Amino acid sequence: MPDRTAPDLPFSPAEYARRLALTRAAMDRAGLDAMLVTDPSNMAWLTGYDGWSFYVHQGVILTMDDDPRWWGRRQDANGALRTVWMAPDHVHGYADHYVQSTTRHPMQDLAARLSDLGLAAARIGVEMDNYYYSARAHAALAAALPQARLTDATALVNWQRAVKSDEELVFMRRAARISESVIDGLVARIEPGLPKNDLVAEAQRDAIRGADGHWGDYAAIVPLMPSGSDAAAPHLTWDGRPFRRGEATFFEISGCYRRYHAPLCRTVFLGDPPDHIRRAEAALVEGLQAGIDAARAGNRACDIAAALAAPLTRAGIERGARCGYPVGLSYPPDWGERTISLRDEDDTVLQPGMTFHFMPGLWMDDWGLEITETILIRDTGPAEALCDRPRQLFVKP
Amino acid sequence: MPDRTAPDLPFSPAEYARRLALTRAAMDRAGLDAMLVTDPSNMAWLTGYDGWSFYVHQGVILTMDDDPRWWGRRQDANGALRTVWMAPDHVHGYADHYVQSTTRHPMQDLAARLSDLGLAAARIGVEMDNYYYSARAHAALAAALPQARLTDATALVNWQRAVKSDEELVFMRRAARISESVIDGLVARIEPGLPKNDLVAEAQRDAIRGADGHWGDYAAIVPLMPSGSDAAAPHLTWDGRPFRRGEATFFEISGCYRRYHAPLCRTVFLGDPPDHIRRAEAALVEGLQAGIDAARAGNRACDIAAALAAPLTRAGIERGARCGYPVGLSYPPDWGERTISLRDEDDTVLQPGMTFHFMPGLWMDDWGLEITETILIRDTGPAEALCDRPRQLFVKP
Repeated sequence: MPDRTAPDLPFSPAEYARRLALTRAAMDRAGLDAMLVTDPSNMAWLTGYDGWSFYVHQGVILTMDDDPRWWGRRQDANGALRTVWMAPDHVHGYADHYVQSTTRHPMQDLAARLSDLGLAAARIGVEMDNYYYSARAHAALAAALPQARLTDATALVNWQRAVKSDEELVFMRRAARISESVIDGLVARIEPGLPKNDLVAEAQRDAIRGADGHWGDYAAIVPLMPSGSDAAAPHLTWDGRPFRRGEATFFEISGCYRRYHAPLCRTVFLGDPPDHIRRAEAALVEGLQAGIDAARAGNRACDIAAALAAPLTRAGIERGARCGYPVGLSYPPDWGERTISLRDEDDTVLQPGMTFHFMPGLWMDDWGLEITETILIRDTGPAEALCDRPRQLFVKP
Repeated sequence: MPDRTAPDLPFSPAEYARRLALTRAAMDRAGLDAMLVTDPSNMAWLTGYDGWSFYVHQGVILTMDDDPRWWGRRQDANGALRTVWMAPDHVHGYADHYVQSTTRHPMQDLAARLSDLGLAAARIGVEMDNYYYSARAHAALAAALPQARLTDATALVNWQRAVKSDEELVFMRRAARISESVIDGLVARIEPGLPKNDLVAEAQRDAIRGADGHWGDYAAIVPLMPSGSDAAAPHLTWDGRPFRRGEATFFEISGCYRRYHAPLCRTVFLGDPPDHIRRAEAALVEGLQAGIDAARAGNRACDIAAALAAPLTRAGIERGARCGYPVGLSYPPDWGERTISLRDEDDTVLQPGMTFHFMPGLWMDDWGLEITETILIRDTGPAEALCDRPRQLFVKP
């Protein structure tokens, strides 16, 4: 391995030690000897690794006593040496002929390394439904380690990320400043006739320039901003058509600071909003306030959903979808943590330091409305909204 | 399902028919009754579907006789109705309580639909090593369809994408104009003291504003631009530190037009480049020319690699990595098609209409150099470079 270039680690040694201790306690409860962590968000959370290399197979090997080991493509080992806190002998690269080969699989290289570590017959947790651990990767690993007991540990690490440390909250507040800057720019610039991609171009520029003296990272999801009847579809991106009078456009964006997110959505109507959208706005704002008031330590995830639902139901709006999810450190394709869901059936108890995108988007048959907040559960009292922008439909006549 | 909003389809009906015919012929050769296509690039290529919804389970069901069927989260079915060419009764949404549930899996819903289609005991191809088909998704589908024969059909659709139609080449040339615009802006703006994120911000703005009257889409990979010794690591993104005199920075970017890419990389040295970088530049430029000359219909993928390697070897540079891959329509996390690799062991015969990112990046122990081209195999003669920018190291004193 080449010489190490001292990494600019985002967090203190104590913070990484906290994360390892939490994860190992969960591994112990699950009866695991080791974890193979392939979700890039989990890899970064445990080791600091940061790079756009998750399009090839890679992972972090975590045992109960040794420092984590980064494993990936050899050319990306150089990136690992520059971003992880572990010593260089804990960075392992595989040869390039494993990449997208029809005759070899990178998991064969990994299996040899796991064997070298004495893990050939171990109980190894794998993230069967996290991103980038493919069906073939699992089959190849199982075939190459016939003695190992591969156990589904989907979201085991994700759950440890739910309560944010003070160090993490510093990053999320920086991301919130960027989110505010992006929303401010979108609201100020949108006007009839402006091609949508030109507005997105400015938003991406604002997001990466950053705010408050802190640089902006790429968000795990690109800006979403459907207009008019397209706003019935939550995950359309953009095109080159101009904004039109008489249409609502919602902006679903997040600032990002060193991979930490604080999503914020607002909607702008160009012209005079129809009554049904005004009524929905009023119900949604009331529901947001009620949900934030219910978002208290000791309450449950479903309490937020129920508090939101009451005013919406009174307004005749039935939402089929969950109304939020935890956020923090993320890589594409999602800025959610994929653990808790703010919905009826989730009775997870809320704890101080948990952060959620409280996201009661309304996607109706031919219109949509998004007014959302990233919230922090406090020790006492209602949640804190990390962003500070008017909670309303913006109207530009 | 709500009423259809007429989609603005990127391609003609004949083009989609061509794609279906190619795919079905490959399915026939593989002995398949049906395909479950989960790679978002393949989904879009077959149906037109476009949306940032690949963070939840979704797919396209393709049989030998019926139109493809889009299947995904119910809220995203609205996006499918707005982007696919099939009739609304070929768009199927699953309920939101399947999303990130610990007790239900979306593949259970899919299995029921496949059974409804008479495919419960069919030979169904699944993309076991394409993106977003997780190990758990495969296990859940297999458990829910015990009579079906699930067969690995990784890259079956990807291979059909290798030769581009004239309609696709129009899009790639538009993407190439955007790539040129982004590189021009990067070369013009980089200077000592400029924070790197500020330069990325302008590049993203240029990419999305588009070029030549065509709007810009998001690329499947964010801009990569490591500097100095960090350029040893190909997949680092950016931070807020300023550019420094005496360092090379490579820019790995792609313009994108309606999901089609034409990557282009150039390197800028701020100051006076050392001799070893100048020698590498000369060898690399010679290798690029030789590779493009070898990139002819009837030659093989490995011939390009061999032509590149000769001048590099003479200059004492041994590259361990492949030197290119096919490009075209893509979604994150990769703009490559993951079929052919330009390397020794790949003897795929080159055909007119194939497009590659010819990408002989040099990632040495403490410096890096990227000068690359997106190339098109022509009917006769050497390949055409889709972008037209000087093939050199740019030096700003």
